Order: sequence, then C-alpha cells, then structure tokens
Amino acid sequence: MADRLPSRIEGMNETEKTLRAVSEGAERWLHRPIKCLDHGFVRLVDYMGNDTAIVQAARVSYGTGTKKTTEDRGLIRYLRRHQHTTPFEMVELKFHCKMPIFVARQWIRHRTANVNEYSARYSVLDREFYMPESDNLAAQSLSNRQGREAVLPPKEAQEVLRLLKEDSSTAYDHYEYFLNDDGMGNPVDAKRSMLARELARMNLPVNYYTQWYWKIDLHNLMHFLALRMDSHAQYEIRVFADAMARIVKEAMPIAYAAFEDYQLNGMHLSGPEKVIIAKNNWPMTEAKLQKVALSMLDNNKRETAEFIDKAQQLGLIAKK
Amino acid sequence: MADRLPSRIEGMNETEKTLRAVSEGAERWLHRPIKCLDHGFVRLVDYMGNDTAIVQAARVSYGTGTKKTTEDRGLIRYLRRHQHTTPFEMVELKFHCKMPIFVARQWIRHRTANVNEYSARYSVLDREFYMPESDNLAAQSLSNRQGREAVLPPKEAQEVLRLLKEDSSTAYDHYEYFLNDDGMGNPVDAKRSMLARELARMNLPVNYYTQWYWKIDLHNLMHFLALRMDSHAQYEIRVFADAMARIVKEAMPIAYAAFEDYQLNGMHLSGPEKVIIAKNNWPMTEAKLQKVALSMLDNNKRETAEFIDKAQQLGLIAKK
Amino acid sequence: MADRLPSRIEGMNETEKTLRAVSEGAERWLHRPIKCLDHGFVRLVDYMGNDTAIVQAARVSYGTGTKKTTEDRGLIRYLRRHQHTTPFEMVELKFHCKMPIFVARQWIRHRTANVNEYSARYSVLDREFYMPESDNLAAQSLSNRQGREAVLPPKEAQEVLRLLKEDSSTAYDHYEYFLNDDGMGNPVDAKRSMLARELARMNLPVNYYTQWYWKIDLHNLMHFLALRMDSHAQYEIRVFADAMARIVKEAMPIAYAAFEDYQLNGMHLSGPEKVIIAKNNWPMTEAKLQKVALSMLDNNKRETAEFIDKAQQLGLIAKK
Amino acid sequence: MADRLPSRIEGMNETEKTLRAVSEGAERWLHRPIKCLDHGFVRLVDYMGNDTAIVQAARVSYGTGTKKTTEDRGLIRYLRRHQHTTPFEMVELKFHCKMPIFVARQWIRHRTANVNEYSARYSVLDREFYMPESDNLAAQSLSNRQGREAVLPPKEAQEVLRLLKEDSSTAYDHYEYFLNDDGMGNPVDAKRSMLARELARMNLPVNYYTQWYWKIDLHNLMHFLALRMDSHAQYEIRVFADAMARIVKEAMPIAYAAFEDYQLNGMHLSGPEKVIIAKNNWPMTEAKLQKVALSMLDNNKRETAEFIDKAQQLGLIAKK
Repeated sequence: MADRLPSRIEGMNETEKTLRAVSEGAERWLHRPIKCLDHGFVRLVDYMGNDTAIVQAARVSYGTGTKKTTEDRGLIRYLRRHQHTTPFEMVELKFHCKMPIFVARQWIRHRTANVNEYSARYSVLDREFYMPESDNLAAQSLSNRQGREAVLPPKEAQEVLRLLKEDSSTAYDHYEYFLNDDGMGNPVDAKRSMLARELARMNLPVNYYTQWYWKIDLHNLMHFLALRMDSHAQYEIRVFADAMARIVKEAMPIAYAAFEDYQLNGMHLSGPEKVIIAKNNWPMTEAKLQKVALSMLDNNKRETAEFIDKAQQLGLIAKK
Repeated sequence: MADRLPSRIEGMNETEKTLRAVSEGAERWLHRPIKCLDHGFVRLVDYMGNDTAIVQAARVSYGTGTKKTTEDRGLIRYLRRHQHTTPFEMVELKFHCKMPIFVARQWIRHRTANVNEYSARYSVLDREFYMPESDNLAAQSLSNRQGREAVLPPKEAQEVLRLLKEDSSTAYDHYEYFLNDDGMGNPVDAKRSMLARELARMNLPVNYYTQWYWKIDLHNLMHFLALRMDSHAQYEIRVFADAMARIVKEAMPIAYAAFEDYQLNGMHLSGPEKVIIAKNNWPMTEAKLQKVALSMLDNNKRETAEFIDKAQQLGLIAKK
Repeated sequence: MADRLPSRIEGMNETEKTLRAVSEGAERWLHRPIKCLDHGFVRLVDYMGNDTAIVQAARVSYGTGTKKTTEDRGLIRYLRRHQHTTPFEMVELKFHCKMPIFVARQWIRHRTANVNEYSARYSVLDREFYMPESDNLAAQSLSNRQGREAVLPPKEAQEVLRLLKEDSSTAYDHYEYFLNDDGMGNPVDAKRSMLARELARMNLPVNYYTQWYWKIDLHNLMHFLALRMDSHAQYEIRVFADAMARIVKEAMPIAYAAFEDYQLNGMHLSGPEKVIIAKNNWPMTEAKLQKVALSMLDNNKRETAEFIDKAQQLGLIAKK
Repeated sequence: MADRLPSRIEGMNETEKTLRAVSEGAERWLHRPIKCLDHGFVRLVDYMGNDTAIVQAARVSYGTGTKKTTEDRGLIRYLRRHQHTTPFEMVELKFHCKMPIFVARQWIRHRTANVNEYSARYSVLDREFYMPESDNLAAQSLSNRQGREAVLPPKEAQEVLRLLKEDSSTAYDHYEYFLNDDGMGNPVDAKRSMLARELARMNLPVNYYTQWYWKIDLHNLMHFLALRMDSHAQYEIRVFADAMARIVKEAMPIAYAAFEDYQLNGMHLSGPEKVIIAKNNWPMTEAKLQKVALSMLDNNKRETAEFIDKAQQLGLIAKK
C-alpha cells in the first residue's frame, strides 16, 4: 500500500540540530529503502534544500526581496512552466540504489550525476541476480523494435526462467571457483591460485546486481524521471524511477506538482502538427484525420500515427 | 582576527531537527558573510555531507562494511592522494557571493557549478563599485604578462582612484537617468521614457558589483581553490577563494587537510625534470644548475627558471 | 541581402584533401564573418561531421547496416522528433565570435561549450564599444520585467546615445592613461607607472567588445539557438544566434529543418492545457475562453494569457 | 610491428577537398581499425583540428597575432606545462570502438565524452565474447586489492578458460533460444514466442562485446589516457588506451609529446614529500629513508612505500 512507508534502516533514527533548510517530506523518507524488483532498492541517503530553496535562488536572479510564502508556489510553477531550470539545480538528492547491471548501464547514460559504484575489481559480488516475475516476461514487439508485447504463456515463461536461473547459478559457481576465496583473503583450495577479481567477474551475466551512491540535482533528476517513468522506458528501470518519484513528491511537493503538470503530463506539438490543428475543424473522424494528417505530414505513417494519438488525448477525434 | 567569526545574518538562528549527516564546522559558518573587497562577501547558505559522507561513498565502491572512525582519516587521505575524486563529489556547498563583474567573469569559467546570478535585465543594480585599496594598485609586470609588480607611488595611485571613482559615479548617474525609475516602476521624470533595463545597464563598468548563489561539489570546489588561491591568480578573486577555503577548512577538516597536503602544497615534476634530478648530484650551485637544466630542458629559459624555483623549494640548491 | 555571402577572410582560400566527412554548406561558410551589431561578428572556423555523420552514429545504436541515402532524412527527423539527442552530439562547430561583454555574459551561461576568450589580463582591449541603433533603444516593458516596448522618441534616443558614447570614450581614455603603454611594452609617459592590465580594464563598461573561440556540438547548439533566437531573448544576443542559425541551416540542412519543425516552431502544452482542449468544443470566443481557462488554470492570469496565445496559434479561437 | 599500419576499411579511400585545418597524421589513421583483445578494435572515424588549431585558440586568449610556426611548439608545451587546458578542448576526435561490456562499464565513467552505443534493446548481439590469453590470466594480488600478480599455471589457466568458454557459449545458446528470431523478424520455431530483446540479453555475461561511437576533446582524452594507460589500470582497458595513444601521437604530435613529458612521465610530490626532500641530504640508503620517511609521513606505511618508489625514480636512493 502506498501509504505505508518502508521501515527505516536500523540505527538511523537519531536526529541532530541544523540551521539548514529542512524538508519534512525528505526527512520522513531518509534511510527507508523502497524495494525494487527482486533484490534491488532505492534509498534516500541525504538531500540539500527544499521548495523554499528553489524560491530563494530564483529571488537572487530576480532581485526581489523576501515575499510571502503564498507567492512561492506561483513562482515555482512559473519557473517550471518557462523552463527556468537553474533554481531547481540548487536542490540535491543523494540515493543509495541497488539494481541489475543492465539497468545500471542504461542509468549511467545520464551524465549529469555523481556516482560511486560498487567495484567488482576490489570486492566480491553477492550471489544475487534478477529473475523477472513471469508477468513481466513479454514477447518482442513487432511494430516497435524496443518494445514488449503480450506476456509469454506460462509454460514458455517457466522455461525461460529455468534457463535464466540455471545459467546465473552456474556462472556464480564458476565465479566462486575462480576466486577461490574463503572471504578472509585466503584460498579455499590451497592447491589452486586465486584468480584476480577483475578477471573472475567477467563470467557474470548482466542480470547480476550492482549498487551505487547516486547524487543528482533536482532539475536533472526531473529530466531523468521524465525519460525513465515514460511508458517507452524499459520496465526494469521504470520501477526505480517510480520509486524515486515517490520520494521527490513528498520531499519537494510544490516542485513535483509543477513537474507533473508542465512536464510529465505535458505534450509537445511540432510545427506541422500546429498547422494541422489550425487549418481544420474539430472534432474530425479518425478515418478522415488519417488522410488529412498523412498528406500534411509528408506521407510519414509513423509521424501520422503519433499525431493521431495526440489528437485523441486532446479530444479532437469525433467519438463515432 | 581569524578567530572571530563574522556575525550571523539576523533571523537565521533557528535550528531544526534533521536525520541527515551534520558538519559542526559548517553549521558554525552558516549565514555568516565573510567580507571580501569593499562591498563583496561570501556566505555559506547550505551544505550537504561532511567528512564521513566522503568515507561512506567510498566504502560503497570498495564494498567494505562500516569501519572504525579512526580509519576514516586514513581513507580520505588515501583517496585524495590517489585522486580518487568521486567520493568528494558527494559533498555539496552552496554559497551566496557578491563580487565585481570582472571577478564574476573569471569565476564563471569554472563550468562544473550551478549558478543563479542577479539579473540586470530584470532588476536595478545598486550604486556599488569596487575601489581598490591603494596597496593593491600595482604596476604591470614586465616579465609576466598577467602579473603585477610594485605598488604605484601614492600620488599616482590617488590619481587612478580619482578617475576610477569619477567614471564609476558618472556611469551610474547616467544609468539612473536612463532608467528614469522611481523604484516603484514609475518614471521620475514623467516627460521622459524609461529605457529598458537590459539596455541601460550597458553603461556600467565591470567594477560594478553583481551577486549570485553558487553551488558546487567539494571535488570541484577544491579544483577551483587550487587555481584561485594560487599566487598567480588575480588578487581580487583570490580574496574570495581564501574566504571559501576558511569555511571548508572547518566544514570538512579532514578532507581539507588532505587537500592542503596533497594538492595545494604539492608540486608537479615533469618527465625531463625527473631526469635532471636523477642524473645529477645534489645539492648543486644555482649557477651550475642554470647550465645543466638549460641544456637538459631544450634550451627553454622559462622552463629552466621554473625548474630552478622547484629545486629551491626542494632544497636542492647549494646555499652558497 | 541574405543570398550574398560575406567575403572570406584573405588567405583562407586554400583547400587540402581529406578523408573526412565533408559538408558542402559548411565549406561554403568557412571563414566568412557575418557582421553582428556595430563591431561584432560570427565566423565559422572549423566543423566536424555533417547530416550523414548523425545518421552513422545513430546506426551504431540501432545496429542496422548501411541504408539508402533516401532513408537518412527520415531517420534524422525521427531522432529529432523523439529527442534522441546523442547522434546530434557527434557533430561539432567552432566559431570565432566578437560581441559586447554584456552579451558574452549571457552567452557563457551555456556551460556545455568550450571557450577561449580574449583576456584583458594579458592583452589590451581595442577602443570598440557597442552603440545601439536608435531603432533598438526601446523603453522598459511595464508588463514584462525583462522586455522592451516602444522605441524611444528620436530626441531622447539621441541623448541616451550621446551620454553612452561620452562615458564609453572617457572610460577608454582613462584606461589608456592607466595602461600608459606605447604598444611595445614601454611607457608613453616615462615618469608614470604602467598600471597592471588586470586592474586597468576595470574601468571599461560592459558595452565594450570582447571575443572568443567557441566550440559546441550540434545538439547543444540547437538548444542554445532555441533559447536565444526566441523573441524573449535580448535583441543583442539574438543577432548572434540568428547568424549562427544561418550557417547551420546550410551546413547541416536536414538536421536544421528537423530542428525548425520539431523544436523551433513547436509548442508545448501543459497537462492542464491538454484538459482544457479535451473538455471543450472548438472554436470558442476569446471572451468565453478567458473565463473557461482562468477557472481551469487555478485562476492564474498569466498562465491563462499564455494559453490564450497558444489557442490563437492553434486556430481554436473563433474569428468573431 | 608498430610501423605497419592496419589496413583501411574498404571503400573509405576517397578524398574530398576541404578548407579546414588538416592533420596529416590523423588522415593517415582514419578508418584503420587497430585490433584490441580478441574481437575488439579502435578506429579513428573523424577529427577536428590539429596542433595548429590549439595554438590559434590560445592566441585568441593571449591576444597576439599570427606568429612564426617555430614558436608554436613552445606555446603548446607552455600551455600543457601550466595546465592551460582550454585550447586543447578545441580539438576533437571521434572513434568507433568495440570492447567487452566490463571494459565499456569502466570506460563510460568518463563523463565528458559523447557516446552512441549499440543497443541490445533494439538489436541482436553477436556471438562474440572475450577469452583472455592465458598470459593474462593472473592471480589476485594480495597487497593490492585491485591488482594482479603472477600468471596462473597453465593447467589452472586452461580450466578457467574452459569454464569461461562453456558458460559464455551456453549463455548465447539460451539467448538465441529466447530470441527465437530467424534474423528476418520471424520466429525460428513458430510454436514459441519471441522474448523481448531487452529481456533476452539479460542472460549474457559481461565478457560479451559491445561497441560505440565515442567522441571526446583532446584535453579530456589526455586525461583518460593518463588514467587508463597507467600500470594500475586493468589490462583489458589499457589495450584500448594504448591504441588511441598510438593514433593521437601521430595526429597531434607536438601536443602528444608535451602530454608525455609533462603529464604521462611526470610525478606529483605532496607537501610532506617536498619537506622530506628539502630537509635531508641525498642520496640516502633505502633502509635509512624507510625510517626517515615513515616518521615524517605520520607513520603511514603505504604512503612511505609510495614515496620510496618516487625517490627511486628520482635517483635519491644510494645504490648500495
């Protein structure tokens, strides 16, 4: 249930006094790992700033003195609406995250964050690998090369999972055999060498879990969330984005609401799409729109389909 | 006196409880502006993390569990010595700064920070311009094109300051005349137009003060400090770097000491310089070193002078 | 006339052979400075890549082999439409630009570029300052704090320009007096000191010209152009953005057309604005829309005005 | 043999004319893949600028006009020596690289580059995985947690390679089974589903090969090379760094030589290390230095060992 907070990590309950800006919502979430996939999590480790910090930074730019709190909401929404993003960069969040390597590989493409990742050159990885729920074992979409379609039939799913589990286990057995490490830095089997960790890990598949500390400012986090909460993002990374969004929603509630209204739930119309709307009468039947749009969009079928989807959302298509 | 803290901005004394990592030294410095030059200042507005936060992030990479606090110092120093910089990126500091425009122009060249600057397009600048102390009015160095030499004789200094003040004042008088703004958005002289702010400000010289919120992580701040506390940096920006260093020294004392030992007070030897040291007996007279170094450094006089300076610091030059 | 290219800098006409991707449009523009404002310019100095280079990089991601050239246009447009921006980062442009300091200060806020600026610490600035055309001397907008309104009456404009010119000239006279430099590094007046350059320049107003080499990738340049070609950007920087756009339009014509269609001429609708469109019948009178929108937009007058402007563009407002 | 260039990719031999700066060395290397590891490579795909371009950008900053070519070398070396890095950012190189996933994971940590990676969400990976030469199968270093020690005995090496090959093959067999793709987008086995590519790839180990286009400026490339050509870097990434260095050495020969002299072959001395050198007579026996250094380095054994290694390189340790 969304209302129940995950419990806080033991021993992390002691408060101290600070003169800094405090966010009640962020305090509530500190050190409560949200479970993601089978062995992963997202945990808020630290933060800097709150909704008011955004306003303060903006007020430096605008040169106005302290204003009533009631105006803060309006200013934050104005800033977000007009993509004045620098004040949002003044807020930072630091997360501890654990995720499969293939998810980490997508995640790291966002370059505007700071990362300290667990290193398999120095340390030994745990026997933890991602096994999808069978509900998430979907077939390849034929229309969209990066998409999923219907879930696999139970028997097929079972077989996939069986092989996945088998290969993951075997890989780890051999990883352990290569390491030949009793955990104290001595060989288990004294007659054999201990292969360098940086080589031994080479055998592990990308469904193995890694972890990192990840620090990012609120503006760049919102950009990350907009891309990774999107329905086109791979399910396995979306789970992590959703978890972070849940935290931000309470930590910087005004900024998050503005993000939802102006970015997440927004829509971009291209120049040619604007022309189609401006030059026609609405609503229109889908059949007619199909023709009209296709001819106005350079006969591009894909772009036409995208526009029809937008027109649907805008209620511009006649019901019948 | 270095021991006396500047006083805290009024109304900024209320503490709240937090579950976050706290730095006692940083708390001590929050909202206490350090005066810089005649009208400028540096004030710590917010921070995230402390020495321990660096260790925690590093321990994720190294995969080791919690260690005794006594080992933290060793790890931080090890990280700094080996330029493992990512854990230092996990700490953030946010400053409110006020400085002349020509200082801001040098400062902004450090791209890895977040900035919200006062905008003279939106707002009216104050009549505040930098007037150097006559002690800082130095002649152009002839050997070093970006350097200063002896201080100007008092009479010359007075004349420079007189002209500087006159031009700065006149510029502001005309700026005000252009704006024709009574401070409430209405014209002072109803018969004249109010020139757009974005145009009127064009008349102000670069010794006028601007201000900004500036947020940066500890690693990049240390890079900034190493460059701007250096004796080759312009005096007017060095003052600001020194002020920030004073704060960081107390806010993250272990990290700052490591920075001093391994970066600020360190020295870089080039490959050819290493060869000179390795191939000769020490100490050596300066006269002899001059010849030896010149021939081994491709007859480059400037590089030779730089090496002699290093040899001096290393005690490799015979006293007599 | 837009069709006539500015002439190429003398001595820059010799071609060499290369195995690299070549852009005919970029070659045409190399070393032809486009005049901007009274003393400024933008000149293409170097470039890497062309439309085809974008396609090649994208094809690595998509793992498809070489395709017919006729499909390149479709792919570039698809990438731009869906904000798959990394292939556009594979193209670079390097410009030599000269602009007033206050323009440079806005420009430098774009951090994702490489810059080498003329340094007034090392070198002496020329007596070149920006004097607006009287057509561009506009009054402060009262509704929009960063905007301009009607042009000043001729007499007022003349007075502003007279003062601006006077102050700029005086500032430079004193700058020269401070420097006391005959251009060969010797004092003009042997009885006086030569003030350090880094101090002397402090007297110059921000309408003085500076210059730099500026290198940026195509994706980030398009972001810059979208912001700075916008009607809300200050006129004096828009001139430079327009000049660069003129070059890019010929250098990477397919990418630029996609940028125009999907970004420059596009429109963003917020979540609440989508709801207004979906829940109402169109067209609607402006008076009615005013009421409807205001109530659905949280009684926010500014946001309502913004939406009405969008509705106008979309032809959703009844003509009478 | 280092002198023989790898052959150029077929069909990439046609030159065109350009007005841009050309680097003969870079032209020589364009489209000649250097083999790295068993299936990987590095290939120069495009470049912008040459040694002269560095000088030109620097001359804008220093405000000096065109100088004799003979002075260019001196300026480039001066810039590198003093870490004036911005002119080196004015040169770009673009590489096509193919490497094991675990190498790509280290590589991508350098955030200041542009990347287009092959996507296993869209496309099917080839059956290509890294099998180390038995000479490179080294045991874990006990003194250095990220290091390698002696090579494994032949029999042990064979066993490691056998298991590695077996697991890699099995993983790919099941990957193919999951995909069930005949290469034309149709199922091989019509009775089974085709698992989504983004899921199927989850079974592949990190020794599988990926590839990307990677673009970086010369300054950041040199930073990458300094870290990854270092003896502490993992062998498998060092191979790629060495390959790129081979290209840069010919493409920007003056800049590369400066990089070697001032960065790659240089040495950093900490503040305390400088004090040790300055306060003692040289040479000194290792035994004595051990004691002296330990007491002056806070009893830190590791730091002492590091200093002794430096003293050795500087010829400060008595031969006997």
